[in-house]
Parts: sequence; structure tokens; C-alpha cells
Amino acid sequence: MFTDMLNFIKEVDKLKIIERRTYVSDGSRRENSGEHSWHVCVMAMTLFEVYERREKTDLFTSIQMLLLHDIVEIDAGDTYAFDVSGYEDKREREVRAAERIFGLLPEGTRNKYRSLWEEFEEGETNEALYASIVDHIQPLLLNVSTEGKSWLEHKIHAHQVLNRNQWIKDISPRIYSQISEWVGIGIEKGWLMED
Amino acid sequence: MFTDMLNFIKEVDKLKIIERRTYVSDGSRRENSGEHSWHVCVMAMTLFEVYERREKTDLFTSIQMLLLHDIVEIDAGDTYAFDVSGYEDKREREVRAAERIFGLLPEGTRNKYRSLWEEFEEGETNEALYASIVDHIQPLLLNVSTEGKSWLEHKIHAHQVLNRNQWIKDISPRIYSQISEWVGIGIEKGWLMED
Repeated sequence: MFTDMLNFIKEVDKLKIIERRTYVSDGSRRENSGEHSWHVCVMAMTLFEVYERREKTDLFTSIQMLLLHDIVEIDAGDTYAFDVSGYEDKREREVRAAERIFGLLPEGTRNKYRSLWEEFEEGETNEALYASIVDHIQPLLLNVSTEGKSWLEHKIHAHQVLNRNQWIKDISPRIYSQISEWVGIGIEKGWLMED
Repeated sequence: MFTDMLNFIKEVDKLKIIERRTYVSDGSRRENSGEHSWHVCVMAMTLFEVYERREKTDLFTSIQMLLLHDIVEIDAGDTYAFDVSGYEDKREREVRAAERIFGLLPEGTRNKYRSLWEEFEEGETNEALYASIVDHIQPLLLNVSTEGKSWLEHKIHAHQVLNRNQWIKDISPRIYSQISEWVGIGIEKGWLMED
């Protein structure tokens, strides 16, 4: 059992070499999915106090989801938020990855991790919603911190960012108003294209 | 309050550019402290089931410590485990860093994070002990995965690794026996120097 756990821990180390489209805050290089996973966890911990649904949400469950949420990218790669064709077979690629990677674990942990990942993907429980909100806004913070570096590279329009995050409005007006502010800055500075 | 939190989250992004001595598992580059922090959290989650003191330990507290434990390195740098002179003023450098970085936060969160960090540093509670065990063994796993790359670079002796981890023996015989096994492999393969 211990050996299987250690094999899994060694295997997931590969998440550190999966590159995302966003840049780290000094703009020197692209962010990888391992450090991204850490950053969203710190973000989830820190913003929880201002989150409107905090009393109905178990923060530890959200954090466990965030620790695991990108592990499937080791096989499936990172699918860019605005990549339409990449989303076509995303689910299929990721399910295969989940089976292989969580499959390295002893049964109890395998089932637990698989179900945390599925819950995150379904995005219905309060815990999954909060984890997903944080995962959605972290790249916005990095874009604003790097003068829109990734937005500019991919010629992203303001409406794309707003559409992608629209669902957050009803769940957390406070966080959504921050998103609107970032998009406003993006437009003003010319980092996001206007329609 | 929200703005202060976001400033903190942006500031801690810098942990992603703090380089450690260990290498990621494919040996292609050194690990940074951001991705390391994620990896130890996944490790803590995964090994908890085999940890002898699990019933007395609150895993979420250990994970929160691990998410925050290296943030002081943004100002203080990473002090290598076997760097004797680096340890002389480590505490002083890190306390200054904790004051500045956690000082960016609103008071409630600042006090909470500072106290989680102090508890980790003191290493007395069950939660701090477990977090520290995981933080100690993760570089061993990476060394064994990279044919002792970092051990060889720094000409580390087997007794240095054993001495540094000796305290784990009484707390978790199961984890300590894994440490002994890794050291045995390190000696056998010539990755660790014998005395």
C-alpha cells in the first residue's frame, strides 16, 4: 500500500512540467500546473472569508479538489480556457488520464480522489463551485499582474473573459465585481480586445 | 480587505521563482518552492492513511501549514537542508520575511497565517510534526527518482540524511523505515557517500 502511494506521489511530480498559457507574475516564464495548483489553494484559503457561501462550504474539501484538479493534465495536457476545439475531446482524454493516474493508488484513496475530481468537474456542490471560482479567477490575477501578457498573445476579447465567468455573478457578487474590475482594466490598458 | 488579500495572493506568486536544490523527477531542472509546496500537500493527503498518529492529527491544519510553510523564502531564500552556515541566521531572516509578507493581509488572516507558520516552525504539535515529516521526506523521494542528482552535486553523506531525519523514527516507524530504505538505495547506487 505504501509503495503504491509513493508511486502515485512520484508520478504526479510530472504536473510540474505541464505548461499553462498564463505567465507567473514577473512575466519571466509560463506557469506550470503544479505551482498553479499550489497558488489556487492559497487563494482559496485567503479569500474564503469574503466568500458569500462560506457557511455552507467545507473549505478543506475545496482545497483537496484544488490539489488534485489538474493531475489529469499529466496525460491529457492543459486545455486552454479559450480553446474551442481542445474542449471537444477534453472530457474523454481526462477520464482516461484519471483512470490511469488515480489507478496507481490503493483502492480506498483511488476512489476518494476519483470522486473528488468528478465532483470538481461536475461543479454542482458548494465545494466544487468555490474551487472552480478560484481556479477561474487566478489566471485573471496573473494576466493583470503581467500587463495582459497571455491575453495579448491569444488576442482575447473582453466578452470571452466575461462569458467564461458569468456564472460566478449569482454565486459570489463580490468576486464577480472583482472580475468586472479586472476586465475593465484589461480594456482600458488595451490588454483585452473590445468587440 | 479584498484588495489586501489580492495583494498578498499576487505577492506570494513569487514563491514560484525561488529555486530549491532538489530536481523535479525527470531531472530536467531544479524544483521551485511553489510547486514543492503543492507536492508536499498531495503527499500529506496521500500518506495520511498510513501515518501512525493520524487519529490525533488534524490533516487540514497540516495542509494549511504546508501551503504557507515556504512563503518566507520569497524574502529569505531557500536554505539548503545541509547548509550549516545558512542555518545561523535563518530564523532571523525568516521572521522579518513573515512580518512583511503576512503583514500584507487583513489582521484576522495575518494572525492566523503567522501562527500557522510559527506552529510549523516550532514543530511540537501533532499537525506540525506531520507537516514537517512530509516536508523532510519529499526531497528524498525526488533524489531517489533522479538517481541522487542533488545528493551527488552536494556530496551528501548517508549519515547526514539519517541524522537529519532521525527524529522521525519514534513518531512514525513506518515512514522512517522508508527513509532507511531510500538511504540504503542511495549507498548501494553510490548516490550517497559512505562514512
